[in-house]
Amino acid sequence: MKTIKGGVTAPKGFLAGAVSCGIKKSGKRDLSILMSEVPAVSAGVFTTNKVKSGSLVLCMDRIKRGIAQAIVVNSGNANCCVGVQGIKDAEFITDNLACKLGIDKQLVLMASTGIIGKPLPVEKINNGLDSLIRDLSDVNGAKFSNAIMTTDTVNKEISVQIKINKKIVNLGGAAKGAGMICPNMATMLAFFTTDAKINKADLKTAFMEAISQSFNKITVDWDMSTNDTAVIFANGMADNEEIRKGTKPYEIFSDALKFTACELAKKIVLDGEGAAKFIEIIVKNSKGVKMANLVARHIAESSLVKTMVAGGDPNWGRIAASVGSSRTNINPDKLDIYFGKYLVMKNGAGTGVTRDKLLEIFKQKEIKIIIDLKSGKASDKIWTCDLTEQYVRINAEYET
Amino acid sequence: MKTIKGGVTAPKGFLAGAVSCGIKKSGKRDLSILMSEVPAVSAGVFTTNKVKSGSLVLCMDRIKRGIAQAIVVNSGNANCCVGVQGIKDAEFITDNLACKLGIDKQLVLMASTGIIGKPLPVEKINNGLDSLIRDLSDVNGAKFSNAIMTTDTVNKEISVQIKINKKIVNLGGAAKGAGMICPNMATMLAFFTTDAKINKADLKTAFMEAISQSFNKITVDWDMSTNDTAVIFANGMADNEEIRKGTKPYEIFSDALKFTACELAKKIVLDGEGAAKFIEIIVKNSKGVKMANLVARHIAESSLVKTMVAGGDPNWGRIAASVGSSRTNINPDKLDIYFGKYLVMKNGAGTGVTRDKLLEIFKQKEIKIIIDLKSGKASDKIWTCDLTEQYVRINAEYET
Repeated sequence: MKTIKGGVTAPKGFLAGAVSCGIKKSGKRDLSILMSEVPAVSAGVFTTNKVKSGSLVLCMDRIKRGIAQAIVVNSGNANCCVGVQGIKDAEFITDNLACKLGIDKQLVLMASTGIIGKPLPVEKINNGLDSLIRDLSDVNGAKFSNAIMTTDTVNKEISVQIKINKKIVNLGGAAKGAGMICPNMATMLAFFTTDAKINKADLKTAFMEAISQSFNKITVDWDMSTNDTAVIFANGMADNEEIRKGTKPYEIFSDALKFTACELAKKIVLDGEGAAKFIEIIVKNSKGVKMANLVARHIAESSLVKTMVAGGDPNWGRIAASVGSSRTNINPDKLDIYFGKYLVMKNGAGTGVTRDKLLEIFKQKEIKIIIDLKSGKASDKIWTCDLTEQYVRINAEYET
Repeated sequence: MKTIKGGVTAPKGFLAGAVSCGIKKSGKRDLSILMSEVPAVSAGVFTTNKVKSGSLVLCMDRIKRGIAQAIVVNSGNANCCVGVQGIKDAEFITDNLACKLGIDKQLVLMASTGIIGKPLPVEKINNGLDSLIRDLSDVNGAKFSNAIMTTDTVNKEISVQIKINKKIVNLGGAAKGAGMICPNMATMLAFFTTDAKINKADLKTAFMEAISQSFNKITVDWDMSTNDTAVIFANGMADNEEIRKGTKPYEIFSDALKFTACELAKKIVLDGEGAAKFIEIIVKNSKGVKMANLVARHIAESSLVKTMVAGGDPNWGRIAASVGSSRTNINPDKLDIYFGKYLVMKNGAGTGVTRDKLLEIFKQKEIKIIIDLKSGKASDKIWTCDLTEQYVRINAEYET
């Protein structure tokens, strides 16, 4: 596997485009499109929030068939909490777009991100569709990843190349999302493209697994935002022998997809609104994965832990207190805590590692916190970022 | 019932004192005592954190007998995560204090708050005991509530007077706690005194109920800090006929105790680290109390909601998204949301209340958010505060 340039348009037969249609007052690009030259095998993962965007409801419904060709994405408006009008608006836009593209309307999906509770400016979007189509090009990967940004400070894309039975196969991905402070409702959107030939069921399995090992490590059950959407298109244009689960090619493809998803997820954490540091929380030797996950998540969600990292203060007591309050049946007398390579707490008491050594760990950009529960064999991890004053400023000043 | 002056020393026969023994570098008072002239009927509520302070373990154990006479409180050190030494240190201090006071050591309790993971400076505390005892006085209520503060910006005390069968009965309370941002591990300590004569079992029942309707509305199951402690002493010196559950006197006493606890809880929220606004979240017409509690708590714990209030931005979409992600089986199509008196969302869609009207609501010091689930008859409420840059600053700069 090697990293290549191009993002979502790196794989064969994918085009992207982006324009400004006037949703954002700033005049920044707010309408984009990603499409395959031919209908593609597709799969999606969506928010489990009970309150859902109309665009997302349409997308969830259409992708059930396992085949799609294009997705239109608007930023600046979430098309959410507007009643049934939200779904009608999404249908209106996608149907018009399908008509203009000359393809079956069932093949067109939609994703939205932005303000909740305001009607989608359908006229502006509709008026932008023609110039959006004119902008379609196979070198617009970066432009696409740029146009889907909201509070993101950097665009997030990745593309890789693998070989499957001597055929070159490409994968690309673009994502938007920042604000990894739980409870986090900043929308995450992720779009994956590949020219691999793979059947619907196996694509879905590989995609679900990739998401669970990447995006689900940075959020809580993928359930926070009303608009969270991850979609993959596999158009088969690499002309490889069809990938099937249980074979070596599937493994290669699946690993490349996981890598792509993990890279995007890490970029999201590092672009957390106002985030300065990446925190990996590993819980090991737990009675079960669920317990490990609960403990890791509880620490990752602790404002006191996150502000402590922001302040560069190696106060492992806050970690111990967080583990103890995770509502799991942990044994505090067996609790070991590591900051990077240093064992700072052993069997529930401090080990006396000097503050200077720990300050050095906390000066680094990436901080690893390991919790050893010494009560089983399961483990899990969560990725998060620190909580800075900048985060609060961005969220308090977010304009509606 | 009328409010009176005096705090914890307002009821007959209670003394308090506070000194600086050198735990805090600042030289501020860090050692205090609250005691009754005679042994008092007592009850306590403690953290459910699995990681517990040694002082708290001792307190929990001794109060089981339902009788106590004094409690010594130190700030600046939590006496937590120091292994078995924590309990030994608490025993050493309380036993010495009991000896100096000439009372049974089982009657002396201890509470600690401050840094986790550093051994208790027993020598400093021990050396301070004599001057602490010399400071005991029945007018030291405010001094006591002042000495137990850590990151608190104002001291929190209250006292009330009621009549029970023509006898005057007094209740007093002091609390410390700030940082009502969940997950919150800032320690809460609350001390209640009364000269009422009441039996052990009924005092415990009344106390549990008062705490559940006050402190448990501002935190999550009273389970976050390793040191959270609430204790009540009833010394019977009002000489009333013994209060018994199921009678009018019990009702009067119980209501006064609830009022005292609620006032202290509200003061804690309003002194949230960097907090500027008090937020009351009411969830009504829920299928059950548990569901109402989960929804209310989920909103109260949302950084996005709390930063929104800090920014004065009436973005009800964030509330709707938070309700939807509360992992409860709410029906989004029935969801109504009120900001103060204004219905901003009805059946899952915005009602179009003008932004100007909502801005006015958000300018107020106290903001009420009501969620009507329209799916049952249960309700619950949670009190919280907004999330400001100041909060992050305080927590990032907290010195260990």
